[in-house]
Amino acid sequence: MQEDVLDTAPGWLPAEDLSEVRDRVPIVYVDAVPVMLDHLGQVRKVGLLLRAMPDGTISRAIVSGRVLFGETIRDAVWRHVTKDLGPDCDPILPASPVPFTVAEYFPDPSRTGYYDPRQHAVSLAYIVPVTGEATAQQDALDLSWVTPSEALSPSVASEMGGGHDKLVRLALANAGI
Amino acid sequence: MQEDVLDTAPGWLPAEDLSEVRDRVPIVYVDAVPVMLDHLGQVRKVGLLLRAMPDGTISRAIVSGRVLFGETIRDAVWRHVTKDLGPDCDPILPASPVPFTVAEYFPDPSRTGYYDPRQHAVSLAYIVPVTGEATAQQDALDLSWVTPSEALSPSVASEMGGGHDKLVRLALANAGI
Amino acid sequence: MQEDVLDTAPGWLPAEDLSEVRDRVPIVYVDAVPVMLDHLGQVRKVGLLLRAMPDGTISRAIVSGRVLFGETIRDAVWRHVTKDLGPDCDPILPASPVPFTVAEYFPDPSRTGYYDPRQHAVSLAYIVPVTGEATAQQDALDLSWVTPSEALSPSVASEMGGGHDKLVRLALANAGI
Amino acid sequence: MQEDVLDTAPGWLPAEDLSEVRDRVPIVYVDAVPVMLDHLGQVRKVGLLLRAMPDGTISRAIVSGRVLFGETIRDAVWRHVTKDLGPDCDPILPASPVPFTVAEYFPDPSRTGYYDPRQHAVSLAYIVPVTGEATAQQDALDLSWVTPSEALSPSVASEMGGGHDKLVRLALANAGI
Repeated sequence: MQEDVLDTAPGWLPAEDLSEVRDRVPIVYVDAVPVMLDHLGQVRKVGLLLRAMPDGTISRAIVSGRVLFGETIRDAVWRHVTKDLGPDCDPILPASPVPFTVAEYFPDPSRTGYYDPRQHAVSLAYIVPVTGEATAQQDALDLSWVTPSEALSPSVASEMGGGHDKLVRLALANAGI
Repeated sequence: MQEDVLDTAPGWLPAEDLSEVRDRVPIVYVDAVPVMLDHLGQVRKVGLLLRAMPDGTISRAIVSGRVLFGETIRDAVWRHVTKDLGPDCDPILPASPVPFTVAEYFPDPSRTGYYDPRQHAVSLAYIVPVTGEATAQQDALDLSWVTPSEALSPSVASEMGGGHDKLVRLALANAGI
Repeated sequence: MQEDVLDTAPGWLPAEDLSEVRDRVPIVYVDAVPVMLDHLGQVRKVGLLLRAMPDGTISRAIVSGRVLFGETIRDAVWRHVTKDLGPDCDPILPASPVPFTVAEYFPDPSRTGYYDPRQHAVSLAYIVPVTGEATAQQDALDLSWVTPSEALSPSVASEMGGGHDKLVRLALANAGI
Repeated sequence: MQEDVLDTAPGWLPAEDLSEVRDRVPIVYVDAVPVMLDHLGQVRKVGLLLRAMPDGTISRAIVSGRVLFGETIRDAVWRHVTKDLGPDCDPILPASPVPFTVAEYFPDPSRTGYYDPRQHAVSLAYIVPVTGEATAQQDALDLSWVTPSEALSPSVASEMGGGHDKLVRLALANAGI
């Protein structure tokens, strides 16, 4: 999960304040698994970002980020997806606010399978079909589209940190795969 | 729920055979609530068909039809949506096969709130966003797009037969409305 | 949504600190709609608490409360349900972490239909069957079990504040009612 | 998927008629994955039946069976679960009619991963916690309770036919595992 760019904007929640808050309450997150669907709604491709993770390693990751004070879940999903995949990715946000799973990230990696050294985060995870041109942005080094079976392969799964491999697996299970 | 055009095609299940089968086993159906979403996934419009119902009255209805032998659920949803809304409606079928509800239609209107005088049908109901040009086809006389609050109003609800008003209500509840 | 008793325990997040945090990030909540099911899983009764609300009025409410730092969603649901309905209510927590809806409470009542004057809260809402002896605890004045149609009636709905009437409606819609 | 005992009862749909119907329309089924939950709703055990399958082999299987004409989904789940696990298994049927997945069984094993040589079946799959004494009945030779990780192990998965291993995997994914 990346740091929000907006968090460092003047007047917004400064980094030191966010750090304090993170020691006190669980932080609300959204995760989005970008997919390409065929005309029957079947998942053909899963989009994975290549990026620098908080622990210094390079990892494949899905779209993930914080929900800001006063921001709706939908606005946060839109903001993070278009920030990571570009303004022309044309995501289809789900009609339902119900996530396919809820990921509970803890600083202790053994608790739930979802791990974030910085915080306790509760993340609502959505499958987000994209229908336009997606291109890696900002701190993401690359964006690759892989088939569902590639996404589930041990080699790709091992490149995902923090439990994102588990999230991709649950997303594809939700899609019947 | 309308009669399938394909059911009367030569070589396909003839009407008298379908009638026999209908007295013996529940029939698999799909229901689709066509919607228009804004960029945040919020339901802006619900598509309702105006059509002649099996009992002879004119009703507002959602897309509904039988799943054929050998046909997948996804193929059936695609077939019925494009048959009713036209080949250019560009539906976004859901990535997940999980319906927002399961409607059990019985010949006895008092059993479940879903009613079909011809049969016992078990229907998987989906919300289907359409992104193209939808136009009423064939036996549908008209297609109208109404706001969620119009769709839930007593006057519009009373024009829907067989429990389709209940299905629209549950679809919008699933969408958080 | 009630104040957590634990929040005022010595060493825990003091009230003034919680207040500060509440101005900075959305707070994670859980909502639980207590129900009694028959042997077929059909909702026979909905449990509603009678309690003093933050705005000073008396309201009917469902179980609702904060998720603490380091606490899992499941632990939070268990803690709030047994705190409100008593240690012998024997709740059956859902196998799936997926809520039936996500309620976004804002200090501005016009934004989402969910209202909390104290904070922006993101709440995961679950249906929780209880199988034991439920009795109102602590700050709840009473617990009443009403039928689904009573729970949906305008008179009962009008006694629920903050959008709990909407949550009960969506819970029953999820149950097919 | 087993043959329904009721199908051979006098006056009910005779075997030859069912066979005819099976060549014409998809048949409605229910699948139930029996589980034992802890007090937090976490899956501790998965119940697997050992039984003779239609193809003559011995397999591990979950509860599975046909929905009869005039029968509700809930009644069918109740009937099949108590028939297979005994009258004292005290199942908690879900409040929601929404299955965790929809399994489409085809006579062609390559189509969907769900296979039934006898028919095209559309099956609504539910997780069903049992709270009483479950014992294998009738044509089931044995009932064993395994941990989630055992249920997902290649050795146990390979003993499940017709795609039941996939169903168990999707059920556990829905439970967040």
